[in-house]
Amino acid sequence: MRIIIAGGDGFCGWPTAMYLSKQGYDIAIIDNMVRRKIDDELRSNSLTPIASLEDRVAKWKELTGKEIRTYTGDLQHFDFLKLVMEQEMPEAFVHFAEQRSAPYSMIDREHAVYTQVNNVVGTLNVLYAIKEIVPACHLIKLGTMGEYGTPNIPIEEGYLEIEHKGRKDRLPYPKQPGSYYHLSKVHDSHNIMFACRMWDIRATDLNQGVVYGLSTNETDMDPVLTNRLDYDGVFGTALNRFIIQSAIGHDLTVYGKGGQTRGFLHIKDTVRCIEIAAENPADLGEFRVFNQFTEQFSVMDLAKMVQKVAKEEGLDAEIANLENPRIEKEEHFYEAVNTNLLDLGLQPQLLTDEVIRNILQTVLVHKDRVIKENVLPNVKWK
Amino acid sequence: MRIIIAGGDGFCGWPTAMYLSKQGYDIAIIDNMVRRKIDDELRSNSLTPIASLEDRVAKWKELTGKEIRTYTGDLQHFDFLKLVMEQEMPEAFVHFAEQRSAPYSMIDREHAVYTQVNNVVGTLNVLYAIKEIVPACHLIKLGTMGEYGTPNIPIEEGYLEIEHKGRKDRLPYPKQPGSYYHLSKVHDSHNIMFACRMWDIRATDLNQGVVYGLSTNETDMDPVLTNRLDYDGVFGTALNRFIIQSAIGHDLTVYGKGGQTRGFLHIKDTVRCIEIAAENPADLGEFRVFNQFTEQFSVMDLAKMVQKVAKEEGLDAEIANLENPRIEKEEHFYEAVNTNLLDLGLQPQLLTDEVIRNILQTVLVHKDRVIKENVLPNVKWK
Repeated sequence: MRIIIAGGDGFCGWPTAMYLSKQGYDIAIIDNMVRRKIDDELRSNSLTPIASLEDRVAKWKELTGKEIRTYTGDLQHFDFLKLVMEQEMPEAFVHFAEQRSAPYSMIDREHAVYTQVNNVVGTLNVLYAIKEIVPACHLIKLGTMGEYGTPNIPIEEGYLEIEHKGRKDRLPYPKQPGSYYHLSKVHDSHNIMFACRMWDIRATDLNQGVVYGLSTNETDMDPVLTNRLDYDGVFGTALNRFIIQSAIGHDLTVYGKGGQTRGFLHIKDTVRCIEIAAENPADLGEFRVFNQFTEQFSVMDLAKMVQKVAKEEGLDAEIANLENPRIEKEEHFYEAVNTNLLDLGLQPQLLTDEVIRNILQTVLVHKDRVIKENVLPNVKWK
Repeated sequence: MRIIIAGGDGFCGWPTAMYLSKQGYDIAIIDNMVRRKIDDELRSNSLTPIASLEDRVAKWKELTGKEIRTYTGDLQHFDFLKLVMEQEMPEAFVHFAEQRSAPYSMIDREHAVYTQVNNVVGTLNVLYAIKEIVPACHLIKLGTMGEYGTPNIPIEEGYLEIEHKGRKDRLPYPKQPGSYYHLSKVHDSHNIMFACRMWDIRATDLNQGVVYGLSTNETDMDPVLTNRLDYDGVFGTALNRFIIQSAIGHDLTVYGKGGQTRGFLHIKDTVRCIEIAAENPADLGEFRVFNQFTEQFSVMDLAKMVQKVAKEEGLDAEIANLENPRIEKEEHFYEAVNTNLLDLGLQPQLLTDEVIRNILQTVLVHKDRVIKENVLPNVKWK
């Protein structure tokens, strides 16, 4: 199966490209390299040193004999996207190629506008390219669990059966996203749902939880294949960030009370979920939604787990309840359904002390690369 | 009260600007004149000859002594918007300034992208300008009833009380819009709801039905004040389009079966609804939604009403069921709530034969201006 991975140089995209390549899929990557440029803009870095995409795919070929083709360009440039689609004629298009940091989208007006235009226009272009060039191609689009917000009812997978005034319908699940980034994903979801209905496009929207870890079997094969790892207040996410904080003797920065509960999954499950989606395509015209996470944790739960493992490794970490830079509920009901991927065969890699210890050990190797002033949050919602 | 009317040169904006000016509000208009440029692009025209905005406001001043200040520029240009906001320091900001044609947004990829970027970025900029310059300013934003689509349950005003698995919440009403234009309004609604929650902005989202008529007491004062009237397949809407078709001896173009039911209102009610919203501002932090229509009709109902009145005027009009260029349900449940504006004092101008006759008589004066090849729909959804 020919698969394009858009955003294939990124944190989720690169491990996915290698994993699928190893499984025998024929992989091409599109990336505009903007995530590396944002490191320059924010004066931040990946905790792990990362090779160029050119070197990555060369090493991959050397080690496995498998070729991953690469196209450097932007999904906002339709002529570029069209040429790639005509060249590749993909059967699946995995779309990771969006600005994916909530704090980045909240820096200021320009970053909010950039995030929404980049994400919405990129996805519109992908929809038109599929319609015009490869109408049967399966769009596998990364959404986020953050699209739902924290409603006071259980979160279903994309749709909700509603009974109202004696009548019934199955409607799109109401969305209450918490940043201009999360909003951009909600906009995408609505646009894709419409395109499926109008043009018989087949799409799977993967509402992904917070991803932790950095290694997969493939990234571990060689240092040149190493994945990026973000720890800063803008791109670093809970758990990974806590582990790195514990490694450098920094307090674990819990925002507010820490009762914020979210869905989480290991990066090894991310790559497997993409494979499951690709192997089980949506029907023509179907807009299918999977909630892609394996476990729910509160932020405070995670901080305590990390604190315990760090202590066993001889590292003392305090938990600091920072003033919350975001506007969000810090204590709330949260119960999200995630059975679609499990029913299709996902066997979750659960979060154990051992998993945390493994990440911590990788982190400790690179801890001198941490730029300390980037660790604290510096983007406020208000 | 100082009010900015963005899009104040347009079909709804211009009558609103005059009406509010007459009521004693201090009005400034922002417009980028793009609607006039689109006439050139589509080789279409307003059925009624319309004066330049400069001439319009000069005539208004001559007749009433009241000044309407004008600013020519684009909401996508934040520096421009900021200057206007600092100059005007408005207490309400009425936002009509969006690309508002569903068929226009469906012409091709470029028009879809233009519509969504123009509308979403313009509104994001307005939100940031309010936050930064006039945080207590009341945003009165034009949405559309088309955001809801045609669910199989009654349509409420913006929110829905949901009981699910034994728990309850009041959530944003699920949206199923039917074009990239309607989608852009859904994106706006989500962005505005978020800004209200984050920044304590006050906003009223007016989900407007299909507007018919062209005259208000103010537009009737002088030919220079005449409102534009669209009849073409791209910008002309049901009812107005049927009346014009009957005037020129064209079949009434019902798309498909004609069972498509929507909310409608007279332009005289549009201007009054804006006044009601302005007089009764949302609370700080409140995202308030009003469904702004007065009656529901199916497209076939309207065609028959027009046919009857036209016949009384000596005009024979046939009803033609064209192949539907859109993808939409042609027979469906439709029941939408619209009590919020009525509770605040709206006294609807209902659709009577006399109202149709009045529009028809105005139309007949200008019928030689019709460009016949523009009457039929030429944009297809698929």
